[in-house]
Amino acid sequence: MTNPAPNVPPPIIVLVRPQLGQNIGKAARAMLNFGLTRMRLVAPRDGWPNPSAGPSASGADVVLEHAEVFDTLAEAVADCAHVYATTVRKRGVTKPVVTPEAAAAAIVAAPAQSAIVFGPERSGLDTDDVAIARTIITVPINAEFGSLNLAQAVILCAYEWSKHATQDSALVQPPVEELLPPAPQFEFDGMFDQLTGMLEPLGYFEPEIRKPVTMRTLRTMFTKPAWNHLEVRTMRGILTTLAHHRRIRERNS
Amino acid sequence: MTNPAPNVPPPIIVLVRPQLGQNIGKAARAMLNFGLTRMRLVAPRDGWPNPSAGPSASGADVVLEHAEVFDTLAEAVADCAHVYATTVRKRGVTKPVVTPEAAAAAIVAAPAQSAIVFGPERSGLDTDDVAIARTIITVPINAEFGSLNLAQAVILCAYEWSKHATQDSALVQPPVEELLPPAPQFEFDGMFDQLTGMLEPLGYFEPEIRKPVTMRTLRTMFTKPAWNHLEVRTMRGILTTLAHHRRIRERNS
Repeated sequence: MTNPAPNVPPPIIVLVRPQLGQNIGKAARAMLNFGLTRMRLVAPRDGWPNPSAGPSASGADVVLEHAEVFDTLAEAVADCAHVYATTVRKRGVTKPVVTPEAAAAAIVAAPAQSAIVFGPERSGLDTDDVAIARTIITVPINAEFGSLNLAQAVILCAYEWSKHATQDSALVQPPVEELLPPAPQFEFDGMFDQLTGMLEPLGYFEPEIRKPVTMRTLRTMFTKPAWNHLEVRTMRGILTTLAHHRRIRERNS
Repeated sequence: MTNPAPNVPPPIIVLVRPQLGQNIGKAARAMLNFGLTRMRLVAPRDGWPNPSAGPSASGADVVLEHAEVFDTLAEAVADCAHVYATTVRKRGVTKPVVTPEAAAAAIVAAPAQSAIVFGPERSGLDTDDVAIARTIITVPINAEFGSLNLAQAVILCAYEWSKHATQDSALVQPPVEELLPPAPQFEFDGMFDQLTGMLEPLGYFEPEIRKPVTMRTLRTMFTKPAWNHLEVRTMRGILTTLAHHRRIRERNS
């Protein structure tokens, strides 16, 4: 899946001054889960390549191998038309602030290269970095406990992008298991008649005056599952087992 | 934020046989970021409490402190009306498979307790665990690189729930026909035990070797209707009628 619409390149993920190689690896893994492959690093603290990134990427090596390194954020996003900066909500920001969902919708709708920029683990993006972006992404989070780490912020943005990219490209939709359709009505009726036919001689519907209501209740209840033909057959097997046994007993008694 | 609509409790997060305390901590952190606080643990490998959970929770201690421990998944979800099992896509599953988004929409719309169940880090949920759930959640993921860890799966579900809970609470709810919620799991289990207990002595499950598969088929089939407590009671009435009759016959025979 994750095939974006034609001419809409997937966003580039830009990590600004990331501290731990481990977190770069985790971000790569988060990206690739949702089909993002282009990573750019701005002045990674411990240089690049970083041997501790690989193990944390859990196989997303292709992302790390093609990661590009820049000295400044301005250079890293120079070829991008839409730059989104992720931050926690800040006062005094004079740019539009959107959710990851709204950003994803905008990214897949704009046939030009986008970048989503993430700050260092501890401090987040500084004001000058944010100034480069046109739009701010803020994850709507528990006001009393906001503690998203770098890879989590990346995965939420990648996930939303993937959702929108696949929706908009009208391609293979997320997995909806192919379920069998409900059994045709006559099969259901056969099962229902078998059940009520067993209950009738046992006095289940007495007093007679309440029978119509009880029948309606049972019918409602057994139409609810919308059992497919295999399930109807299974239910009939159950009933036959119970009824057959009774017949044996009756014959012997 | 994360104010769910009135009478819609946030879902309980159930971790089945989690291996590392660290991952339990990370799951707690992921939950609290999006306002989820109720965690249940089924047979955590290293017991509970686990000293390595706290540091990974990054302050989400309130979740860990109130975590409840159970021996089996059945017990852990006994009081839940809607049980969702998270899995990667599997063949031969005969339950509805939904995205985290669709599950979140359903959860906030249903005024009854939901649970979202996650399997062990390596193996995921086994077939018997999945059989307990009514619905499967699968994150639509890169088909060539699916590598979500436990906390990432949790955060995506928590994030979607939070999005839907806040969206919906911001609105005046349209009048929805008041349907009874599905019966709690323990009522369902009682009914199911009654049915299988009747079928067993009649040889329904023979040959013995096929019994686990047959049991799973039946469980899947009877979880499908999501019967409410009145319907469960009706089904038990039906079974009792059939069984009682047999007992009379048996006594007389």
